[in-house]
Amino acid sequence: MSNNPAMKGVLSPVVTPFDANLAPDAGRLVKHCKWLIDNNVGLAVFGTNSEANSMSTREKLRLLDALAESGLPTERMMPGTGACALDDSVELTKRAVELGCGGVLMLPPFYYKGVPEEGLYRNFSEIIQRVGDDRLRIYLYHIPPVAQVGIPLGLIERLLKDYPGIVAGAKDSSGDWSNTKAMIDNFAAQGFDVYPGSESFLLQAMRAGGAGCISATANVNPGPIAKLAATWQDDDADAQQEGLNVTRGIFQTYVMIPALKAAIAHYGRDPEWNRLRPPLVELTADEQKDLVAKLDASGFAMPGLAA
Amino acid sequence: MSNNPAMKGVLSPVVTPFDANLAPDAGRLVKHCKWLIDNNVGLAVFGTNSEANSMSTREKLRLLDALAESGLPTERMMPGTGACALDDSVELTKRAVELGCGGVLMLPPFYYKGVPEEGLYRNFSEIIQRVGDDRLRIYLYHIPPVAQVGIPLGLIERLLKDYPGIVAGAKDSSGDWSNTKAMIDNFAAQGFDVYPGSESFLLQAMRAGGAGCISATANVNPGPIAKLAATWQDDDADAQQEGLNVTRGIFQTYVMIPALKAAIAHYGRDPEWNRLRPPLVELTADEQKDLVAKLDASGFAMPGLAA
Repeated sequence: MSNNPAMKGVLSPVVTPFDANLAPDAGRLVKHCKWLIDNNVGLAVFGTNSEANSMSTREKLRLLDALAESGLPTERMMPGTGACALDDSVELTKRAVELGCGGVLMLPPFYYKGVPEEGLYRNFSEIIQRVGDDRLRIYLYHIPPVAQVGIPLGLIERLLKDYPGIVAGAKDSSGDWSNTKAMIDNFAAQGFDVYPGSESFLLQAMRAGGAGCISATANVNPGPIAKLAATWQDDDADAQQEGLNVTRGIFQTYVMIPALKAAIAHYGRDPEWNRLRPPLVELTADEQKDLVAKLDASGFAMPGLAA
Repeated sequence: MSNNPAMKGVLSPVVTPFDANLAPDAGRLVKHCKWLIDNNVGLAVFGTNSEANSMSTREKLRLLDALAESGLPTERMMPGTGACALDDSVELTKRAVELGCGGVLMLPPFYYKGVPEEGLYRNFSEIIQRVGDDRLRIYLYHIPPVAQVGIPLGLIERLLKDYPGIVAGAKDSSGDWSNTKAMIDNFAAQGFDVYPGSESFLLQAMRAGGAGCISATANVNPGPIAKLAATWQDDDADAQQEGLNVTRGIFQTYVMIPALKAAIAHYGRDPEWNRLRPPLVELTADEQKDLVAKLDASGFAMPGLAA
C-alpha cells in the first residue's frame, strides 16, 4: 500500500536513449515513457538504469522539461535527483517539484566512501531546507552494490523524525530482503513507502506492507509486473510472481542496462536504442541474438512498443 | 623526472574553503594557492582532497576562472576534470586547456562499478576527441579506494598508443607500490609521468623513475615535501623521507580532509577553514586539539600561512 496514490505499485527506472552523438534523445524518451504509462507503471526517470549519472545536471534539466512539456503526467514521475554535489541535487529537485513531479528518488552523495551518518544526514537536510517546498516528497535510494554508500536505517529514522511527510519512502536495491523487511517493519507505519529494487521481491513486499517495486525490467515487462502489484491478493499471485521471475532471470544473464536497450531496440524495431554512454557498452551482436532467442522461447513480448 | 617541466615534483590536491553558506570561497582558495606556489608545489585543484565531487561543474568553472584571473600561474595547475558524465568532463577540460593549465587530472566515470575496460577507453577517447586540442595533457587518476573504478594498466597502454603526448601520466593513489612501480616500469620510457598519491612513496618513486607525487599533506607540509623531490639524490634523502613520514603519520590518524582543514584553520589563524561540504564533516573539537598538540610536539609548522 502506498501513501502517495500517484506512486502506487510499480515504477520503471526509465532507460535513456542517446543519439549518434551520444546526446540524450528526448523524443524517443517521451515515446518510451508513454508506452510505460500506458502499461501502468510510473516513471522513475534518471535512475541507475537510466544512466542518469552519465548525464550532466544541465542535460537532465532539459530532459525533465521536455518530459513535462510532452504532456506526460508529472505526478507519475519520480526523477532521480540525488548527486554528489549539493547544488546539483538542489537544482534538480527544485525543478522536479516545480514541474509537479510526484516525488524524487534521491541517491546519497556517492563519491566519498565510509562517510559518517551525520554527513549523510546533513546532505539530505540541507537539500530539503534549500528546496524549501512542502510539496517535496523524497524517496531515499539505497543501492549499495553500485553507489557503495547506502542509506542506513538510523539515517531514515532521523530524517523521518525531522521531516515527516517530506521523507516519503525508499527504494531498496540492496537485493537483501532482510533489509527491505526492516525498512517496512520500522517505518511503514509512519507513512514511509518501501519499494524493493526488483520485482523478484514484489509479492513478498506487498504481503509485508511494501508499496510496490521500482525495477529495471519494468522497462520491458511493465504490464505483467504492474498486474501483480494490483492483484497480489488474488489466488494466482504466486504463479504470477513465478512468471515474472522467468523474464527477470533471462535479463539477469546479461549486463542489465545494455540488455534492456537491446530488447527495446529489437521488439520496438528501433536499432537506435542500442547505444550506451561510456563507461557502459552495448551487448555484442551474439549476446543480442542470444537474448532475443531466449526471450522469444519464453513467450516474452512487448505489445504495442513497435507501433 | 617529469616530461612536463611545469608539473615537476610535487603537487597539492588543494583543499577547497567553503563560506558559511557552504559556497566555494574563491578568495581564500586563491590565498592558499599562492602560499602553496610560494612553497614550490603545483596546484592539483579539484582533486579528491578538494571535495571536488561535492561541487557542481558550474561551481568548478567559476573557481577555475577565479584562479586564472588571480594571476596564479595556470601552467602550474592540474585541475581534476574527470566526472561521471561525459559532457561535464569535456566542458571542464576544455576550459582548463583554454586557461593554459599545464594538465588535467582525470578520474574515470565512477558511478557504475565493474565496467569493461572498453567502456573506460571510450570515455577517455571521447573526451580527448571532443576537447580536440593538442595542448591537452591528461594525467589519469587511479584511486580505487575511493572511486572504486580504477585505471588498469591495459587501459593506459591502449590510450598511450592512440593518444601519445596527450596521455601524459597518472596519479596512483592505490597505496599499492607494486602498481605504481608497474606503471613506471611499463610506461615511463614512453614519456608517461607517474605520481604516487602520497609522499610516503616519494623517494621510492624518484629512485624508480617517477615524476614526483601529488599528496594530500602537500596542502600543509609543502616545503619539506617539495625539497625532497628536488634533492632526492642528496645524502640526506632517506632522513628527509623519514621526517615527512612523521608528519604524514600524524595526519593519517584522523580523517584526512577535515584534518587538513583543521590544520590550515589553526596555523593560518582562520577558523573559517574548518568547514566541509556534506557528506564530509569537520573534526570534533577534541580531535582538533589533539591533532594540533601532536603536530606542535613534532615541531610541525606552516611558515608564512598566517601572514
